[in-house]
Amino acid sequence: MVDNWHSCIDRELSIVEDVMMENLSSDNPELTEMCQYVVGSGGKRLRPALCIMSYYACGGKDCMIPINIGSAYEIIHSATLIHDDINDMGETRRGRKTLHKEYTVSKAIVAGDFMFAMGFRLLADSAPNIVNFVVEASAAMGAGEFIQKDYEHAINVSEDDYIDIITGKTAKLFEASVKSGAAVANADAEVMEAFGDYALNLGLAFQIIDDTLDVTGDPNNTGKAVGTDLLEGKPTLPVIFAMRDEVHGGRIKELFMIPEVSMDDVHEALELIRSTDAVQRCMDVARGYINKALASLDEVPDSEYKQSMIALAHYVVDRDR
Amino acid sequence: MVDNWHSCIDRELSIVEDVMMENLSSDNPELTEMCQYVVGSGGKRLRPALCIMSYYACGGKDCMIPINIGSAYEIIHSATLIHDDINDMGETRRGRKTLHKEYTVSKAIVAGDFMFAMGFRLLADSAPNIVNFVVEASAAMGAGEFIQKDYEHAINVSEDDYIDIITGKTAKLFEASVKSGAAVANADAEVMEAFGDYALNLGLAFQIIDDTLDVTGDPNNTGKAVGTDLLEGKPTLPVIFAMRDEVHGGRIKELFMIPEVSMDDVHEALELIRSTDAVQRCMDVARGYINKALASLDEVPDSEYKQSMIALAHYVVDRDR
Repeated sequence: MVDNWHSCIDRELSIVEDVMMENLSSDNPELTEMCQYVVGSGGKRLRPALCIMSYYACGGKDCMIPINIGSAYEIIHSATLIHDDINDMGETRRGRKTLHKEYTVSKAIVAGDFMFAMGFRLLADSAPNIVNFVVEASAAMGAGEFIQKDYEHAINVSEDDYIDIITGKTAKLFEASVKSGAAVANADAEVMEAFGDYALNLGLAFQIIDDTLDVTGDPNNTGKAVGTDLLEGKPTLPVIFAMRDEVHGGRIKELFMIPEVSMDDVHEALELIRSTDAVQRCMDVARGYINKALASLDEVPDSEYKQSMIALAHYVVDRDR
Repeated sequence: MVDNWHSCIDRELSIVEDVMMENLSSDNPELTEMCQYVVGSGGKRLRPALCIMSYYACGGKDCMIPINIGSAYEIIHSATLIHDDINDMGETRRGRKTLHKEYTVSKAIVAGDFMFAMGFRLLADSAPNIVNFVVEASAAMGAGEFIQKDYEHAINVSEDDYIDIITGKTAKLFEASVKSGAAVANADAEVMEAFGDYALNLGLAFQIIDDTLDVTGDPNNTGKAVGTDLLEGKPTLPVIFAMRDEVHGGRIKELFMIPEVSMDDVHEALELIRSTDAVQRCMDVARGYINKALASLDEVPDSEYKQSMIALAHYVVDRDR
């Protein structure tokens, strides 16, 4: 039931797949292949879904408008994942080798830049007046990634620092996707802001749960090995909470500070984190953001699509459990 | 005399420096520092200059319009240089360490993405209707870099392949800069096309000469070691011509195919290339493009700024000699 949130836009989401493929083909067969490798490896397509749902919820009628914009957002999101994987030396994503592992790092950097540009192009072609939304979000993503790098293996990261990081890394693009859909449906400023607040809070909850799954998740569901963030020294919320645990916090800090941590250390850290209340606290924080997201929707008129957005919020906290 | 081509827009070019700095400051001090490191290391600012000159030549009066657009182009260009340097494992640029050598590769990737986004933002804020020009050029840059990677150490690259590469890598952004300036001054379509042809041909000549300077240049003027392209296996026009030399072509091919070439090999290759007519032929090809560029300007009304564009064309073939 809960993973059925997208049933009223399934047709649109399947067109998104085609639009992305069309917009990423170029004269260079290997470049096309690389782009297809990335977008063809799946994903929940949350950004296109948010854009399409908000467009319809605001009374929009021409399905191709939010499909094109949503596809552009997904392409830009995919481009950032390529560069993130290079930066994190990630080996797998969605159960497949990362792009730079399958092709080289230098080709993957260029392919990321190319996808970034193609995403902007599709957006500028479809709706030039909303380019600013995505550009703001892209700038925030860069800043978020940067702060995260600065805090690698750091034990003094606060919950606020973490929220700043994931606001830039994830939530801002969610917000931009949904506001873009509302904007091109000519929504009132208040409605657009309400949708924006919904998506920003949804994005925060989504990322917190994603980071929590790195501690508790089943690799068969998440598509990546458990403990990846720990291996990379990323100060995620479960780690931040666990480092403050009275019993195990000291040892978790020690393990987290090791620059080149071993898999044995990662497994020890995972065991210790799971033995604290960190995961539970993360879920509570995530549910707090989901409640904020749902409260924002109170201010917009009811519709089938608003109901889907509510269902999506419930899905985000209940997925992969 | 010849390097005085920009005298009528010197005031505007100095404002470009300030606009770039302002638009690249963020809450993150190190990110700001990295951006300043890149744009603060100088450069000829050809893209802003082209945009400003064409704007004025088309009757535009508000100097801040082409200054903002031109600054956006220079920021985007700088962003691509960061990623190019990572891909080419470049150690120096403009006489200083490359960004990824001074900070890490992963921070440099993020800083490049950030600058790319900030450039788009400035452009979208200043003139949303010309976003498409820069996006097309960015896509072409990606494709050009990609083809170049495919041809590394390859001995079967034709002059046409090379022109395809540098069209994407360099000339398209020149074209976009100048067309953007004309477009925001409300130039006729014909005038805009004429300026576009000028800049495209100027860009081709500029890159051919840049590549030729890698064989003949003085590192004190070019800011990078001679033979860098050879070391990286880039099939530039002098190399393509020299590989066809009846006497030395065979040996040059042998040296060019070595994947991890030594500095001794590079120096041998440089000596051999200089002993052929390759450099002379490159200069002839570059002059051919400059003549095409100048011919395109015949179709636009005369002005102080058109005269500067003519002077710039002469400067491009005569610089650093």
